[in-house]
Amino acid sequence: MIRVAVAGAAGRMGQAVVAAVEDAEDMQLTGKADPALGTPLADVLDDADVVVDFTRPDTALGNALECLRAGVHVVIGTTGFEIDALRDGAAQSDANVFVAPNFAISAVLMMRFAAEASQHMARAEIIELHHDAKLDAPSGTAARTAALMQGDVPIHSVRLPGLVAHQEVILGDVAQSLTIRQDSYARESFMPGVLIAVRRVGQLEKSPLVGLEHLLF
Amino acid sequence: MIRVAVAGAAGRMGQAVVAAVEDAEDMQLTGKADPALGTPLADVLDDADVVVDFTRPDTALGNALECLRAGVHVVIGTTGFEIDALRDGAAQSDANVFVAPNFAISAVLMMRFAAEASQHMARAEIIELHHDAKLDAPSGTAARTAALMQGDVPIHSVRLPGLVAHQEVILGDVAQSLTIRQDSYARESFMPGVLIAVRRVGQLEKSPLVGLEHLLF
Amino acid sequence: MIRVAVAGAAGRMGQAVVAAVEDAEDMQLTGKADPALGTPLADVLDDADVVVDFTRPDTALGNALECLRAGVHVVIGTTGFEIDALRDGAAQSDANVFVAPNFAISAVLMMRFAAEASQHMARAEIIELHHDAKLDAPSGTAARTAALMQGDVPIHSVRLPGLVAHQEVILGDVAQSLTIRQDSYARESFMPGVLIAVRRVGQLEKSPLVGLEHLLF
Amino acid sequence: MIRVAVAGAAGRMGQAVVAAVEDAEDMQLTGKADPALGTPLADVLDDADVVVDFTRPDTALGNALECLRAGVHVVIGTTGFEIDALRDGAAQSDANVFVAPNFAISAVLMMRFAAEASQHMARAEIIELHHDAKLDAPSGTAARTAALMQGDVPIHSVRLPGLVAHQEVILGDVAQSLTIRQDSYARESFMPGVLIAVRRVGQLEKSPLVGLEHLLF
Repeated sequence: MIRVAVAGAAGRMGQAVVAAVEDAEDMQLTGKADPALGTPLADVLDDADVVVDFTRPDTALGNALECLRAGVHVVIGTTGFEIDALRDGAAQSDANVFVAPNFAISAVLMMRFAAEASQHMARAEIIELHHDAKLDAPSGTAARTAALMQGDVPIHSVRLPGLVAHQEVILGDVAQSLTIRQDSYARESFMPGVLIAVRRVGQLEKSPLVGLEHLLF
Repeated sequence: MIRVAVAGAAGRMGQAVVAAVEDAEDMQLTGKADPALGTPLADVLDDADVVVDFTRPDTALGNALECLRAGVHVVIGTTGFEIDALRDGAAQSDANVFVAPNFAISAVLMMRFAAEASQHMARAEIIELHHDAKLDAPSGTAARTAALMQGDVPIHSVRLPGLVAHQEVILGDVAQSLTIRQDSYARESFMPGVLIAVRRVGQLEKSPLVGLEHLLF
Repeated sequence: MIRVAVAGAAGRMGQAVVAAVEDAEDMQLTGKADPALGTPLADVLDDADVVVDFTRPDTALGNALECLRAGVHVVIGTTGFEIDALRDGAAQSDANVFVAPNFAISAVLMMRFAAEASQHMARAEIIELHHDAKLDAPSGTAARTAALMQGDVPIHSVRLPGLVAHQEVILGDVAQSLTIRQDSYARESFMPGVLIAVRRVGQLEKSPLVGLEHLLF
Repeated sequence: MIRVAVAGAAGRMGQAVVAAVEDAEDMQLTGKADPALGTPLADVLDDADVVVDFTRPDTALGNALECLRAGVHVVIGTTGFEIDALRDGAAQSDANVFVAPNFAISAVLMMRFAAEASQHMARAEIIELHHDAKLDAPSGTAARTAALMQGDVPIHSVRLPGLVAHQEVILGDVAQSLTIRQDSYARESFMPGVLIAVRRVGQLEKSPLVGLEHLLF
């Protein structure tokens, strides 16, 4: 049994992680840290093999360093902090740190396939579609996809009420096209990827390791 | 049997019209006019009930007026000329003139459905996708669709090698979306609409009449 | 202000209706009936202009007749009961009853467009896709769509984990296709349609009236 | 310059290969064999480095063996013959033979991605869509895709007028889906793959070699 504590356990993603860990047969939920719950991270470290952190960019780095000092592996789902700042802490710890900007396995597959297809098809374009409450554009996943692809790939962003989180990569060549579409329907889409990371973070060959693709392929 | 002559019969669209008329059981192909064939329009008017004109904007108007003077109905698939210039000729003739910017029935249905859906859904966007040899953007069909819809509908144009002619209208509202997609795979997609126009041009209540939707609904 | 009570208020759909009514500026939530809440329907009828019933087939009919006897309009989102059994009750009441198998506006639009398009396109097929916990196939919406369309339209049902509720109607004709796709991402997709029904049930020209399309077009 | 002869040069695919070879800057068209042209294969072998054969199953094997005996490489786009029967001829020849059931690069990518995605996603289904003149179902590409995927993958076949050749592989997992769609719009979609095979057939490590994927990845 892997003993797992969740940081940010009262947030929307944190609650979903709590539920996923409780449902996993090879894991035991040993702690829920969150300022809203009155439980600091320090209180859950003793009983945990792995901490899953879905807090915010301004707290994730400090949390991760605290876990590493305590010898507890940490899986981070927050991006937007300086990953380089983890290197010293990771080098001095027996524990590992794993970070992923997107834990949806289907999104990771889409990025990988788009990268590979772009080496064989003449040209491509990315269309990402999200609910209209998403203010930033393009999405981080779309930008990352384009960066992995060969050639200059335009990104178009659609924002419409009702949509959730979707992306299409369209590649064209002589008389043919290939379309890779990924749909996320709810935040639970991240959970299978989070559980894979929890199971694997203890045996990483490199730490910090960034990107779920390194655990899938 | 409707006697049909084709103007621009040596062009790509003209050849497709010739083939479609020859295949239609209720029509007889009575003439093929084209400078490339050495046959002027005047030579085919005597034997025709209807002329189908898929020439170019700079010749379509003159051709149409010549047909009307000869009492021959005319179906025009070229756009970009001044339709108002047809009114006097049409008023003075027993023959009718019908013009459509897009003869693909599925495209006409898409435009109509998009217009109606926009009255009931919160917001919408149009994405039109064409082969990269199409230099203009947005497509005429996309611009026409947006003009028919309620609200301010953005149009995004994708140009990729291999594509033919496609359009998606995406409408969003609370927790739902509706997507209307039209695909044209070859110029033959226009032919069922052209044949409908040939059959109906003799009984128009108004002339000139613009838009295949008036013959479908 | 329309005074609205919800029957089945403790169920998943009922809770969503409660939230939608509370958010509507022209409505006031006056009662929540549910065996699980210990509140029978009779207790909420006095204060309500309209009852929204998202209970089950075996209770919806009795609930509706009770509303009609009390002179309270009723909007029913449950299907599977005998609608004919409502006729006498509706005839003897000043109140109206409205029933819809699907309150998602985009689904209603899809059905209407599919019906119309089938009159102009050569052939069609319906593909409906749902999460794998949905045991019945085809979906009621797919069966209803096919029944509204001209010609013999096959239905194929896809059941896959992760999907929510989706349907595509694909229509083909010479060198072209038209695809009408509807996606429901969460049960909130029904709420705009429910609110329309609440606003309109008091002015129906016919009662019982079945189908949201009669309120949209 | 690679000297290329085409067998079945008068057929539809053969004509497309002739045009593609003529357009390729690193190739020279040296012969067109076809019973309909009165030119037997033997007459074009002397001047060719590579023969491309898009004839029929009952002639492809004999043609290939004749090429191998003459020391001419051969690229075969016909399937349905016994590939094992090529082994002896290939073993005794300095020339190579390459066979592919589908030369569309996008289709080969789709098959590869579907195979890989099926190892990471819970369940999948294949929907292949073709014009209604295609009598067999499922398509060879769909059957091949399913065979490459993990798990039991159902195939559904849609046949509608107007469609060309399309396939969707839909994979589902918790709250997410991944869809890989391939569209072929015309037989020219095979040509980039055919040209790759012509360029590579002289340096195969194994002969006969079956499957364009071995030349792409």
